[in-house]
Amino acid sequence: MGKGNKVYFKRVAVLGVGLIGASTALAMREQKLYGEIIGFGRKEENLARAKERGIIDDYRKSAAAAVEGADLVILATPVGILAGFAGEIGPALMKGSIVTDVGSVKGALVSELESLMPEEVHFIGSHPIAGSDKSGIDDARGNLFTGARCIVTPTARSDRQALEKVVSMWEATGAVVECMDAFRHDEIFALVSHMPHMVAYALVNAVEAVDPGCVTYSGGGFRDTTRIAASSPELWRDIALMNRDNLLRVLAAFRASMSEIERCLEENDGDGIEKEFSRAQKLRMSIDK
Amino acid sequence: MGKGNKVYFKRVAVLGVGLIGASTALAMREQKLYGEIIGFGRKEENLARAKERGIIDDYRKSAAAAVEGADLVILATPVGILAGFAGEIGPALMKGSIVTDVGSVKGALVSELESLMPEEVHFIGSHPIAGSDKSGIDDARGNLFTGARCIVTPTARSDRQALEKVVSMWEATGAVVECMDAFRHDEIFALVSHMPHMVAYALVNAVEAVDPGCVTYSGGGFRDTTRIAASSPELWRDIALMNRDNLLRVLAAFRASMSEIERCLEENDGDGIEKEFSRAQKLRMSIDK
Repeated sequence: MGKGNKVYFKRVAVLGVGLIGASTALAMREQKLYGEIIGFGRKEENLARAKERGIIDDYRKSAAAAVEGADLVILATPVGILAGFAGEIGPALMKGSIVTDVGSVKGALVSELESLMPEEVHFIGSHPIAGSDKSGIDDARGNLFTGARCIVTPTARSDRQALEKVVSMWEATGAVVECMDAFRHDEIFALVSHMPHMVAYALVNAVEAVDPGCVTYSGGGFRDTTRIAASSPELWRDIALMNRDNLLRVLAAFRASMSEIERCLEENDGDGIEKEFSRAQKLRMSIDK
Repeated sequence: MGKGNKVYFKRVAVLGVGLIGASTALAMREQKLYGEIIGFGRKEENLARAKERGIIDDYRKSAAAAVEGADLVILATPVGILAGFAGEIGPALMKGSIVTDVGSVKGALVSELESLMPEEVHFIGSHPIAGSDKSGIDDARGNLFTGARCIVTPTARSDRQALEKVVSMWEATGAVVECMDAFRHDEIFALVSHMPHMVAYALVNAVEAVDPGCVTYSGGGFRDTTRIAASSPELWRDIALMNRDNLLRVLAAFRASMSEIERCLEENDGDGIEKEFSRAQKLRMSIDK
């Protein structure tokens, strides 16, 4: 296997049919990467809609039943319940099958999921970078991963063939795959994803505390800056707690940046303010180049 | 005059031909609100391009020359140099003419500009809510204000006819006009605009302090949250300083919101975190309804 090679699964099970699970299913269908796809999730109504929309071929009433006979299992539930799910499906997993996930936290979770796999079942952690404030199947689309980065986090214990298949699968969906240590992943995403979520929630809460009616005056700036504060509180509670140490460390750095701006304001230090803003502008502009 | 009535100026002068100045000029041209429009700005190259693109009919080498014979003067320079400009053009302003601005700070600035006007020249403060991280004429468009709010800040001294003309002018560009006390304006925009800018700059600076290379891993969340950190440092330095007291007050509220999230994280308080996130989600979702 590898870049450009075709990967194929006889039967895929997708556990959790939300934005990412459903989009993965759609992308795999468009690329003809499987013979059949079975879903499972907490809400039967959602599963029925996914079947109706052709996102999954069928669904089962339990996670264990859904993974039966599957040579690829995609765990796409919120990260807080991933380990519970993995334990539940363990006995039902087929020998030789591959299990991957789409969680925004890796680190210790990858080791835990790996250790929960029965013998001859291979876990490979993944994180396609395509989340948004949306979380339902109505926003799912087969090209969600086109050009998006997907981090894959092999460990020393990872099966080489399983790793190559998971990499090929994501590449086939259009993602740009990068392999990375699971703990390094969490350091990076604490900074560029988890911290911005905390800040966006806090920004809205500050408006709520001072004068909530003012939101009717918000323009594009406030809307952009706080868009991800519409994200699922349950999902982000779990991500925040599971990446707590990294997150607290980067939030301390953020607090220092805020304090410097506040100090300049208090001291009417125009040069200092402009210096802070210019430094940020330079780095921010480099992203869109 | 008033809603629905046509307003017309023989000659308009627009001082500062950036995103807002140029878009105002274009919108007024599309609505045939003037006979002629003359520009002035710091960079002749920019003025030549504005003339070439049909944004202005012609330009002058000084602000005083540009306002000669104008019955409407639009001050569209960064707020930090507005008062200087107003003083400079004072002697050249025509009796009976109207001067308005487009600045993001009102409050004391409105009183100052008002007091700088010669006799029989009427100043009316405006703030069309249509800024972005862009600030040049290349992003200017005649429909920038369609559906956007425009705050107009009359004072006890405001000339009634001049006020009605300025309101009609903004309504003709497609804006939804609201009249408001200038100091109330600054309280509101400290919260929904100026604070988010401080936070966006600080977020990028935190990434810069911890690990700047990580920005290549940023997804839509980081991009949205920090988009306005690409805004002009000079412009935002002045806005921040001119609305310093309100800004420091709302930044204290933001600090309290951040501290509560950090406290929950430190204490592994999942319920507390979810409560904070849910509160923010609810208010944020109400904006897009």
